[in-house]
Amino acid sequence: MTTATITGAATTRVRGALAAVEVVDRPEIWITLRGESELLAEAASIDTAVAGGANLPLAGLLLAVKNNVDVAGIPTTAACPGFSYLPERDAEAVARLRAAGALVLGATNLDQFATGLVGTRSPYGAVRDSRNPDFISGGSSSGSAVAVALGLVDIAIGTDTAGSGRVPAGLQGIVGIKPTLNVVSTAGVVPACRSWDAVTIFARELSTAELAMGIMAGGSRAWPTDLRLAAPSKPRVAYPAILPALPGAWAAEFTQQIDRLRASGVDAEAIEFDAFLEAARLLYDGALVAERYVAVGDYIEASEGGVQGEADIDTTVGGIIRAAGRLPAHRYVADTGKLEELKQKAMARLEGFDALLVPTAPFHPTLVEVAADPVGVNSLMGTYTNFCNLFDLCAMAVPAGEVEGSQFGLTVVSRTFDDAVAADIARRVESTPTAPVLFADGAATAASHASTSSIPWPVVAGASAVSLIVVGAHRKGQPLANELERLGAAWDGVVRTAAQYRMVSLDTLPPKPGVYRSNEGAALTAERWILPEAAIGRFLAALPEPMLLGSTLLEDGSTAVGFECDALAASEGRDITHYGDWLAVPRDASRQFSWKGLGEAALTGFTRGSHSNSRLERRVE
Amino acid sequence: MTTATITGAATTRVRGALAAVEVVDRPEIWITLRGESELLAEAASIDTAVAGGANLPLAGLLLAVKNNVDVAGIPTTAACPGFSYLPERDAEAVARLRAAGALVLGATNLDQFATGLVGTRSPYGAVRDSRNPDFISGGSSSGSAVAVALGLVDIAIGTDTAGSGRVPAGLQGIVGIKPTLNVVSTAGVVPACRSWDAVTIFARELSTAELAMGIMAGGSRAWPTDLRLAAPSKPRVAYPAILPALPGAWAAEFTQQIDRLRASGVDAEAIEFDAFLEAARLLYDGALVAERYVAVGDYIEASEGGVQGEADIDTTVGGIIRAAGRLPAHRYVADTGKLEELKQKAMARLEGFDALLVPTAPFHPTLVEVAADPVGVNSLMGTYTNFCNLFDLCAMAVPAGEVEGSQFGLTVVSRTFDDAVAADIARRVESTPTAPVLFADGAATAASHASTSSIPWPVVAGASAVSLIVVGAHRKGQPLANELERLGAAWDGVVRTAAQYRMVSLDTLPPKPGVYRSNEGAALTAERWILPEAAIGRFLAALPEPMLLGSTLLEDGSTAVGFECDALAASEGRDITHYGDWLAVPRDASRQFSWKGLGEAALTGFTRGSHSNSRLERRVE
Repeated sequence: MTTATITGAATTRVRGALAAVEVVDRPEIWITLRGESELLAEAASIDTAVAGGANLPLAGLLLAVKNNVDVAGIPTTAACPGFSYLPERDAEAVARLRAAGALVLGATNLDQFATGLVGTRSPYGAVRDSRNPDFISGGSSSGSAVAVALGLVDIAIGTDTAGSGRVPAGLQGIVGIKPTLNVVSTAGVVPACRSWDAVTIFARELSTAELAMGIMAGGSRAWPTDLRLAAPSKPRVAYPAILPALPGAWAAEFTQQIDRLRASGVDAEAIEFDAFLEAARLLYDGALVAERYVAVGDYIEASEGGVQGEADIDTTVGGIIRAAGRLPAHRYVADTGKLEELKQKAMARLEGFDALLVPTAPFHPTLVEVAADPVGVNSLMGTYTNFCNLFDLCAMAVPAGEVEGSQFGLTVVSRTFDDAVAADIARRVESTPTAPVLFADGAATAASHASTSSIPWPVVAGASAVSLIVVGAHRKGQPLANELERLGAAWDGVVRTAAQYRMVSLDTLPPKPGVYRSNEGAALTAERWILPEAAIGRFLAALPEPMLLGSTLLEDGSTAVGFECDALAASEGRDITHYGDWLAVPRDASRQFSWKGLGEAALTGFTRGSHSNSRLERRVE
Repeated sequence: MTTATITGAATTRVRGALAAVEVVDRPEIWITLRGESELLAEAASIDTAVAGGANLPLAGLLLAVKNNVDVAGIPTTAACPGFSYLPERDAEAVARLRAAGALVLGATNLDQFATGLVGTRSPYGAVRDSRNPDFISGGSSSGSAVAVALGLVDIAIGTDTAGSGRVPAGLQGIVGIKPTLNVVSTAGVVPACRSWDAVTIFARELSTAELAMGIMAGGSRAWPTDLRLAAPSKPRVAYPAILPALPGAWAAEFTQQIDRLRASGVDAEAIEFDAFLEAARLLYDGALVAERYVAVGDYIEASEGGVQGEADIDTTVGGIIRAAGRLPAHRYVADTGKLEELKQKAMARLEGFDALLVPTAPFHPTLVEVAADPVGVNSLMGTYTNFCNLFDLCAMAVPAGEVEGSQFGLTVVSRTFDDAVAADIARRVESTPTAPVLFADGAATAASHASTSSIPWPVVAGASAVSLIVVGAHRKGQPLANELERLGAAWDGVVRTAAQYRMVSLDTLPPKPGVYRSNEGAALTAERWILPEAAIGRFLAALPEPMLLGSTLLEDGSTAVGFECDALAASEGRDITHYGDWLAVPRDASRQFSWKGLGEAALTGFTRGSHSNSRLERRVE
């Protein structure tokens, strides 16, 4: 009973985590820590389900939930005791993770009403850095980030409007995924700024974060049919030409990271960062903050003068939100208009790039430094995160070593719905986590959960995609693979067809095999790509004679779209079925006819100019 | 020189139009009418270009432009003399129509700052109904609509935020297309409410309006890859269960129109209209109107007390905009949130329907009635138009006969980007225009311009689409045509392949031909569908063995995606090439083998359950 052994772990993991909570002695992480008996009962039921064969991809992974996100039976405080309410059901994001076998350990502390990037703005106490308690955790998802960094949980839910799901990931040396807006449901989440709120995930490794994000975003209908599912094999990455707010050592570290990326085959280029910074200023100095008043303004106003209510409200947070209530509507409208202009300008700067690489947090302040200038330091913390949600970009914050004793983080920012592109590039950036992992068994198991899928998380989450089986020139590293890469296809490994195909050598340039179904067929080695639905349509529209696409039967009995050649090419080509694999065909054999019939075959193979099928020609008269 | 004769028309048409302008004696239509010599010079240059073979799909069509849209050299007043500025370049929408050969006759009157649905709110005079000058024209695109209705021009540009491009179309018995937001550029347009402004087109016939809209929206990058390009052959249309603001005779007319549509094969069903009406109230009673203050508030405030400026401002319009400047930002944010909720509710009501059918205007007031209650009557006029842009729906207003001496209009409203679906249904509604067309030659020529294209206007405008050539079961009226209809495909007529294909009869249910390329091939009769890019990807992913898709060569030398069968099916099928057309194959011949090998062929033909290629199965563990 291998499964039972693995998942008996759920109970073990809960005991281990509760012990670790005691050991680390960071009570400020938790607003509500669930009781041992309740946790053990839930762990036992997960263990039983898995032993019974239930399909729970997150079985027994421990989850912390930021306390502005509903967990049934745990008061949602948003770090304001007076605001507290007891939700009857889980927020949708929480429900999805639990349905996949995750176990909620407790609800975590945050900057009140998710207003802050420091982690200190809470009547439940300032959350301290996981390694050095004189330093801040970063916020607003402070407790969630530190719980993950200390290894108390495997994954944690955060929220992010201006950087709350990234700044603490950067300072705590962990991964934080801030997806494209509306991909994860915000149902059951206390709004900060309704227009720009995202639910995020923290984990120590990217693979675990992606696994959880795919499940948390499950069933999203937001994805378009033409999203990209991978970065090209040589991605182009932009980075800010100047680095405001970054001390010298941090700037040097960033430059070194860029050099390291370049060495790994990424094309990196500096761009002007002005439009991005200007958007950040709109968030702090403009009228966009009125959204915060809509979320909790009524509560704040009602508490004014009231003894208990007033005391519950963080002075800085209360001041920000009260001021937000006095802004005129026309200024808000003008600012959103200005934002649209800045977005266009920023997107023009990113033209031709797959992602923007920025430091996650610009420096690591102490608690004392924040107390001395709560608004100023907070504002600097958001330098490289604020613009992101305002422009509806997606972002992956990943750990990238250390600088001056602090953890250094990089964030890969990509366009709306380019989440899989960002993930691909983030994988190149990710380095070993440096946070102390007290609960090593947990970390190991989390990684093993994640390693079993190569499907991009947006596809797991519901983005429409189609498998394409290729046998020849479109295989990875072969001459036409770049056609698929340009369409945003993700490579998904080697497969084998059912034994019903024959393969001939076609006189094309580059050389290609032609495959056709036959009663005397054999199994062929092939590869699978995953393409966006619109991309395979575009690919089909540009496909030259004699290549065709249709249903290919695989060895495992499943079908997928695959290549065949037309009947004429099949009858004229030289049979090479016995090789079983196009890559095993000797170069000479594959080009045996050496341009026999060049005038016809090579022409139809790829050079014919008349691709009027690739897009409808405009016919307006 | 046929072309020269046809297009010498441009000069003739200008002379005719100027004469007609005199005859109708409606000076209030125009804020600026261009001078004769300037017009004739431009007409001559169009005539010369066409004679020289230039491809100008709108050659010589006369165009009126609402005076809140820039025309180079004509002051843009927005119907406020003091606000006036002289633009150096055409608005993008104007420039596109002119580049296609349209000729701007002049700039038209409007409700000041496009604030109104009546046509009376202008210091340039109230625009009167084209047939009965005691009645209003409707607005705010008043002059543009009346100029088209009277046959002074062929097409006219309007704008539409709350109904300004539809209400006057309805009252004037003409067509008005209000496209999905951001499909036509608003560059060079004085904003009314930036978030909900659309540039619209008026024409007497739907075909002309669609022709112009396709050009005006040209190059739009807004379209998704999975938009629908046609309504199904039996569309499902919703209509409001109750009809607020509609007098008895108008309500009876609406019911009759619904019955007529039903008789034409449309499935019509009443729905609750509450969410739509509530959105309209948000527009008038809420804080959304703050957008108007952002557009022209500074001008209005600066004019206050100033002698000239103050006199230029319409009392009603000035009152609305000044009040809009005093609204708080948090109320605007709350209202846009409420709007989002209402949209979700409204879209749930439309679930399963292809369109919503509403009266365009609820009744036709006199100038006196509007003067007595300028805000109240105006508000009622928008009952069936206000919700549209707020929910980002598209709409086609089409004439539909008369009621109590007034012209009755219907509007087909469809979802965001379903513009081609709305157009398809509007075609069923359209009736003969009843407005007096003084300039009959113009009307005839406009119609002849429009009749040459069957491509849906969103595709002309740049929506990505792919041609699919079908020879058998997917032809119109054949058993599998509904697969393409469900994918939003538009039928584009009969075509013929190049003489390089053979056709066999396949043992499938329903019976299908199998086509393959051959050195001894013939030309086959086929049909062309136009599919959205994502739809053909989805179609391919669901295609069963032995059907394949690839490049088909047509008789005219162009290529398009078409069907072939695989080599095995080609070798096993009975040759029926000599019929030349699947529909010419006798029923018996096409099923000659009468289920020989049912266990294999019929199975692979369509019943095989394993369509795991249609969408990626979720693999999360």
